[in-house]
Amino acid sequence: MEYTIREAQIEDMEQVLNLVQELADFENEPNAVEITKTDLIKDGFGEQKMFDCFVADTNDGIVGIALFYSRYSTWKGPAIHLEDLIVSEKMRGSGLGTALLDEVVKYGDRMGVKRISWEVLDWNEPAIEFYEKKGANVLRDWDVVHLDEKGIKNYINNIG
Amino acid sequence: MEYTIREAQIEDMEQVLNLVQELADFENEPNAVEITKTDLIKDGFGEQKMFDCFVADTNDGIVGIALFYSRYSTWKGPAIHLEDLIVSEKMRGSGLGTALLDEVVKYGDRMGVKRISWEVLDWNEPAIEFYEKKGANVLRDWDVVHLDEKGIKNYINNIG
Repeated sequence: MEYTIREAQIEDMEQVLNLVQELADFENEPNAVEITKTDLIKDGFGEQKMFDCFVADTNDGIVGIALFYSRYSTWKGPAIHLEDLIVSEKMRGSGLGTALLDEVVKYGDRMGVKRISWEVLDWNEPAIEFYEKKGANVLRDWDVVHLDEKGIKNYINNIG
Repeated sequence: MEYTIREAQIEDMEQVLNLVQELADFENEPNAVEITKTDLIKDGFGEQKMFDCFVADTNDGIVGIALFYSRYSTWKGPAIHLEDLIVSEKMRGSGLGTALLDEVVKYGDRMGVKRISWEVLDWNEPAIEFYEKKGANVLRDWDVVHLDEKGIKNYINNIG
């Protein structure tokens, strides 16, 4: 299978959103995706650029993405967070995940970041095995915490 | 006890770093802090501003910090990540953690973010209880993954 890894363009955002939805379905959160193509275009290509994205492009369209942005560690310094590494289910096992991750790590190395971080579901053993093979550490004692939009509003109402 | 919550200034970075080190000690990672005061000044107040920070200031100096930056959720949109919420051990239970978190949530609400996220050690039950009382969800099935600086270099060497 022939593919090209390249930077995402505005025209790709519909297919990027489709892959985000496909991953949400896989993660048993089919109704969690609230953003729209318009949001992705504004947030990825507007005045306040909030993420970068590589896509795996084929004759059949975009079959994988790696979407990331800057973070900061008060222990290590500048970092990158890989928000989504997605390969369409029909393309799994084709080396696309590695090709996309390669680009992100090379980008991080060029930028001199001290860490690349991401998050994984603890039952997603194929993903965990893949990441560990790449040299990443899965920190099983660190949990992710979210205060969601409704939680923010409730919090604000409670402090008056 | 009287205190003021205010935005951090360059002059605060030495005390901010001391609190970061105090937390690293508490988390059984006393040697993990590699950044310096100079790094914090460059990264927090330089051309490429990488974080914002509130401090709790008292007659005895700075006794708490909330350090945060922007993130992006491909499900929800713009978000804030609270990298560190630290209250000096001698000041725990004084309401400072709440006062600092209040400022971050108010800031996020003003910015219209869709989520405020952070991370917690799964054995830090007092912290988890505090966060849940504030309306946050501790996602115990999501683990944090790190590719550290050495891992990045190894990765690059392996792909040639």
